[in-house]
Amino acid sequence: MGLVVSLDEGKKKGSAKIEPLVELVSADMNRVNELILSKAGSDVAMIPEVANHLISSGGKRLRPMLTLSAARLCGYRGDGHVKLAASVEFMHTATLLHDDVVDESELRRGKLAARMLWGNQASVLVGDFLLGQAFRMMVEVGSLDALDVLSTAAAVIAEGEVMQLSAAKHMSTTEDEYLAVIRAKTAALFSAAAEVGPIIAGLGRAERAAFRSYGTNLGLAFQLIDDALDYGGSSAELGKKVGDDFREGKITLPVVLAYRRGSESERAFWQRALERGEIGEGDLEKAIGLLRSHHAIEDTVERARHFGSVSRDALAPLPESPHKDALLEVVDFCIERAY
Amino acid sequence: MGLVVSLDEGKKKGSAKIEPLVELVSADMNRVNELILSKAGSDVAMIPEVANHLISSGGKRLRPMLTLSAARLCGYRGDGHVKLAASVEFMHTATLLHDDVVDESELRRGKLAARMLWGNQASVLVGDFLLGQAFRMMVEVGSLDALDVLSTAAAVIAEGEVMQLSAAKHMSTTEDEYLAVIRAKTAALFSAAAEVGPIIAGLGRAERAAFRSYGTNLGLAFQLIDDALDYGGSSAELGKKVGDDFREGKITLPVVLAYRRGSESERAFWQRALERGEIGEGDLEKAIGLLRSHHAIEDTVERARHFGSVSRDALAPLPESPHKDALLEVVDFCIERAY
Repeated sequence: MGLVVSLDEGKKKGSAKIEPLVELVSADMNRVNELILSKAGSDVAMIPEVANHLISSGGKRLRPMLTLSAARLCGYRGDGHVKLAASVEFMHTATLLHDDVVDESELRRGKLAARMLWGNQASVLVGDFLLGQAFRMMVEVGSLDALDVLSTAAAVIAEGEVMQLSAAKHMSTTEDEYLAVIRAKTAALFSAAAEVGPIIAGLGRAERAAFRSYGTNLGLAFQLIDDALDYGGSSAELGKKVGDDFREGKITLPVVLAYRRGSESERAFWQRALERGEIGEGDLEKAIGLLRSHHAIEDTVERARHFGSVSRDALAPLPESPHKDALLEVVDFCIERAY
Repeated sequence: MGLVVSLDEGKKKGSAKIEPLVELVSADMNRVNELILSKAGSDVAMIPEVANHLISSGGKRLRPMLTLSAARLCGYRGDGHVKLAASVEFMHTATLLHDDVVDESELRRGKLAARMLWGNQASVLVGDFLLGQAFRMMVEVGSLDALDVLSTAAAVIAEGEVMQLSAAKHMSTTEDEYLAVIRAKTAALFSAAAEVGPIIAGLGRAERAAFRSYGTNLGLAFQLIDDALDYGGSSAELGKKVGDDFREGKITLPVVLAYRRGSESERAFWQRALERGEIGEGDLEKAIGLLRSHHAIEDTVERARHFGSVSRDALAPLPESPHKDALLEVVDFCIERAY
């Protein structure tokens, strides 16, 4: 079930790659991975079991790569970026563990969610443990500015999740309200992951702002594409079932657009399905049909493309380098996932 | 249902008070309370609702008082102790929110647990938010040593909770194993709350070690008395139902002692009730009867008294002062709660 969206002229489908970034940071990333395994360790056997289940299930580790690459691009020569990158990944992993409990998800990255194997309790507590370990690593690095940025992100992410919880069942959610949610729950960590690069390299206001903006807008684009894929990818690619958001009554941008553009009877359908959770046979297919007829998925991808442009322009003033090229290409890679 | 324990000779029932400590720190505590209300604020309405439900339900705020008093006792004259004290209370509140989800508790401090009113989801996420805000306040204070101590405590607390989860259904838990759990889940925060006092006052190794030891042992005593009260207080005093630990299958020290001292048939009773969760009419009364016949509650209080002594001796070398007297009296106050 692929998406039907028009490609930018002259742009080949899937031409952007993440591999250049992966290769540039691979030596550093090996150290991050070692650190992650070591800091997820505990004499309490359940902690490494739960943590490694998620850690080894192979996300792309995009967020820590942003930290590593941003630090190198800014000329950093020390070791602290490895710890900060591992902290960023732990914050992300903790969020996933807590999200699965909140969303009552059954799958995560194509495997059973940790809560299905060890229970909600372990997911809550191991998430707390990883968050604590993340802060310990940040403290070891000793940069109060980096600590400020990352601890602020931690609070903002939780705030965004609560915002989503409050908005979750309201079809009246506007596009702006939805953007405020994903700005907090997704983009804040991308932003912080990128900004700690220039911070640890000792650079100033302009570079911090550039990386902050790069990360924020990349995060927005990333989340919007995720939302689009939820109504159009395949389970194998996504690591979650198509229609998860629909079944969980999540109001994402595709739905916001289709609802606002729809007829009275279509709005009644969305209210029944997402506000009241009355979902029957064929409703997912009907939802996808409505999304298509209103170009809601295409336009969600278009919005993502907009934020992608802002993200790329944020890095534009920086001197040319392989890291810069790789970070720019990752923006396109995230967006082209939707094709 | 009172406890029958022998009182120390010459010691009047309930003679130790928390009021001297409360009065000494009251001006600082007002500022902590203001800060708590302000930092629990958010444009996302559910966050202050949930947070204030718990914050306003009036725990004694013992942990932040330790921070305030320790800092003053160490001659600190600045403002940072107020932020650190608020951070400590937020860490504690976050833990309570997550604990209620993990334990499936219905009551907390005599009121409905937040999860009963707003759901598990909000409890997980608002806990995460408060933890993030706690770290932001610590970062504002700018002491890397204080950050180190508190972030380590955050990880250790979560580790202790997981340890408890793993041990929760094993009657074979030894006293030492149980102590390892409460050392992590309860005593670590008392310890950190006290230790950041000398840290922020710029004192050295000896004072830090003294307050760390004071806090750790006070925390152990506090938790053991809590465990004893769960089988012997009244619901109104406790803010939770008598027998909560029993119904949740929690293995606490009174039970560890009664099990090890019991007959084969008594052990079979404990295994049925706590390991298999088969609890019927009259089982709580039977459990309390067994605890009494083996002096398990008295001896739990005796163990608490032991840690109380260690706690008081840890502060002994410090110069005399009203703060020192108040901190010493709080140790006895915590233990005398059991009478």
